[in-house]
Amino acid sequence: MTQPYQLSVAQAASQIRDKKLSPVALMQSLLARCAALEPRLKVWVTLDPNGAMEAAVQRESELMRDGPRGPLHGVPVGIKDIYNTKDMRTTCCSPIYADYVPDHDATAVALLKKAGAIIMGKTVTTQFACGDPSPTVNPWNALHTPGGSSSGSAVGAATGMFPASLGTQTGGSVLRPAAYNGVVGLKPTFGRISRFGVYPVSWTLDTMGTFTRTVEDAAIMLTVMAGPDIKDGHTSHREALDYTRAIGSQKTPPRIGVLRTFFFERCNDEVRRHTDAVVENLRSAGAIVNDVDIPVDFDTVLAAQRLLMSVEAAAVHEENFRTRADDFAPIVRELIEMGMITPGVAYVQAQRVRKRFRREMEEAIQGFDVLLTPSTPAAAPRSLSTTGDPMFQSPWTTCGLPTITLPSGLNGDGLPLGIQLAGAPFDEERLLAAAKWCEDVLEFTLTPVD
Amino acid sequence: MTQPYQLSVAQAASQIRDKKLSPVALMQSLLARCAALEPRLKVWVTLDPNGAMEAAVQRESELMRDGPRGPLHGVPVGIKDIYNTKDMRTTCCSPIYADYVPDHDATAVALLKKAGAIIMGKTVTTQFACGDPSPTVNPWNALHTPGGSSSGSAVGAATGMFPASLGTQTGGSVLRPAAYNGVVGLKPTFGRISRFGVYPVSWTLDTMGTFTRTVEDAAIMLTVMAGPDIKDGHTSHREALDYTRAIGSQKTPPRIGVLRTFFFERCNDEVRRHTDAVVENLRSAGAIVNDVDIPVDFDTVLAAQRLLMSVEAAAVHEENFRTRADDFAPIVRELIEMGMITPGVAYVQAQRVRKRFRREMEEAIQGFDVLLTPSTPAAAPRSLSTTGDPMFQSPWTTCGLPTITLPSGLNGDGLPLGIQLAGAPFDEERLLAAAKWCEDVLEFTLTPVD
Repeated sequence: MTQPYQLSVAQAASQIRDKKLSPVALMQSLLARCAALEPRLKVWVTLDPNGAMEAAVQRESELMRDGPRGPLHGVPVGIKDIYNTKDMRTTCCSPIYADYVPDHDATAVALLKKAGAIIMGKTVTTQFACGDPSPTVNPWNALHTPGGSSSGSAVGAATGMFPASLGTQTGGSVLRPAAYNGVVGLKPTFGRISRFGVYPVSWTLDTMGTFTRTVEDAAIMLTVMAGPDIKDGHTSHREALDYTRAIGSQKTPPRIGVLRTFFFERCNDEVRRHTDAVVENLRSAGAIVNDVDIPVDFDTVLAAQRLLMSVEAAAVHEENFRTRADDFAPIVRELIEMGMITPGVAYVQAQRVRKRFRREMEEAIQGFDVLLTPSTPAAAPRSLSTTGDPMFQSPWTTCGLPTITLPSGLNGDGLPLGIQLAGAPFDEERLLAAAKWCEDVLEFTLTPVD
Repeated sequence: MTQPYQLSVAQAASQIRDKKLSPVALMQSLLARCAALEPRLKVWVTLDPNGAMEAAVQRESELMRDGPRGPLHGVPVGIKDIYNTKDMRTTCCSPIYADYVPDHDATAVALLKKAGAIIMGKTVTTQFACGDPSPTVNPWNALHTPGGSSSGSAVGAATGMFPASLGTQTGGSVLRPAAYNGVVGLKPTFGRISRFGVYPVSWTLDTMGTFTRTVEDAAIMLTVMAGPDIKDGHTSHREALDYTRAIGSQKTPPRIGVLRTFFFERCNDEVRRHTDAVVENLRSAGAIVNDVDIPVDFDTVLAAQRLLMSVEAAAVHEENFRTRADDFAPIVRELIEMGMITPGVAYVQAQRVRKRFRREMEEAIQGFDVLLTPSTPAAAPRSLSTTGDPMFQSPWTTCGLPTITLPSGLNGDGLPLGIQLAGAPFDEERLLAAAKWCEDVLEFTLTPVD
């Protein structure tokens, strides 16, 4: 029999709405799961089981009294520990913020609450969402990295500690850990979800994202959080849509551009063979597949992304670094130090590289519903001293196009592999429709720890 | 009797439309004016009288054959020599581009042509639209600067060489010379007019603007040029309006906030007394006037503007400067050199100062139709080795709010003074309506050289 912790967001929300599932029973099942797995996996920074149960009890009585608040009524969600949460510690996994309790919610968190979600607790991030590995391990094999920076959010979603969670991506911090752990990771268009109240890595790159186990759940989460926010000047003026309508709306098979440039040159043989097999699988099911080669130097784009990130990180941390440099972990420290000696002209030129690249990618995607690449150059590395290489994600964060990763199988060592799909800017509807179509063809359900 | 060169854009366009004025007669009158004044004033880089006459003849036959192309049919316009003009030299007043003939029009120029305007020629700018004085002199007194950088466009509009012209503003390069020469200068909201095809000073500050002798003419010019352009990612997605509808639409007197902070502290006594008198004049006519004081450190904003401008200018000129540093004039050279040694972190922090300032000014203007300040701290300085101080313009270029200057009188030395009005972002309609109301109350018609 299906346990409540195994339910997707869509299933849990609908059963709660229909009063077939109690928010309390759901929370009990998830907390039991956490109690069993947390000692090994290290997903949580802050989890207060009593507080979480109280919130579930409250949602249950609200439901009985007033009906559901919104589409996520009673659904527990894990929040990366750089999103501010009112009255709940937000540490960025840094000693500097070990005791920081915000007096407000990040906009994304506030929207989740408004939709009825329960903020279950705060998940482990690499320090300040940069490159220093966190204590979290990969649930498929504890000797392998779970990826980062959103390590806790990825692993918790993969193992049934919660049906959905929030992450952030500045380089590859949502889709890489999603792929390493065998879940669906969505990074919408830059400007689609407000970043207000989220500790920045880099203002011009940071993008909010989600971890779920299905494409439909990603659409539900996006629908709740998308839209312009006066507190984040980067959010688009375009109104957000009901993205759940995208699910199943792909009536004819999607037009898929397989982006060979860079992505098929830099992945290992196993990933290349796997991705080619997935593409054949999609083609057999009816997808219109074409290879795409574009004259773009992705190494320049990656260098520009690193430069922008380091200069902006140096600006973000300038004050703390002046007085507490020793409290920074080595990789974020090096990032800040690089940023501090980078000339302004180099920064401006990197922004120009980025702008040109965005135009190039907007052109490259024309005529396709999505571009397809392997999600990562290799499965999760056998190491806990790296979070893996973000190079297959960073270009998309840099150009701002929306991307999603789907689990597509296991490699020879039993670790998840994924395919990454990119869509046209602000066309998450089409991206999600195509992703759902692919998900149905691939029919993978991965469960790491049962 | 009124000579054709004295006509406003509105008058000339309507008389041409009604076939009461021939584009050829108008051009003849303007060219005669140029021939008389150019030796003294130095307005033109490129003026080909034969070519201009040919264009007028062509517009005349078009008019007879097909009717007017658009709202500016047959109206000659002066173009600052940093706007690319197809088949017409575009020098930036730099030896590096002395022979550069673009193969395309800047978007703003293309839109003027489409509306039927005649590109009469290219006007003098300070080198690369920076701070080194140009040879142009002030028509009110040739010992005084005409301001800059758009010196030729300002002086030509003031003296009837053309009824309208284009400038650009990165610090104070439209409204300052407009005020120094006694004409109307309009700088719309950042993102309102495309900058495609205009040689940049600073990508994140450069704003296109116009010189005319009436507010109505500014509205006509804006209507022709405003709107999103795929070739300039900074142009707003908001569609442009017919701004001529704003003229006369101010039925009830406007609500004017007199911005005392900074602007009334940094101007000289004469300007302060003059501006107070103008405000009393507007109040007597019915305007609802309130003083505004805001806790903003404008000196920090000015420093941020200079830093952004120098870093971006260094990036713009990086390649040319490497090989031809000696071809740069001293002030632009120093600007580039400052930019080259400015750290990226300082650049990023300056962008943050700017963003915060924009929010502060958007708040400050709430409850008012416009904010009013003196246009300049003093009338045009008695010097040809400076273009004057941009400090009353730079804050508005930095926050992106639209501004307009109106001539409001002469000082003790017979030099023009002006008032500057600022509007809410992307609400040029309200700004122009209020400006027209003020223009009608002030009833100044200034003519420097007759």
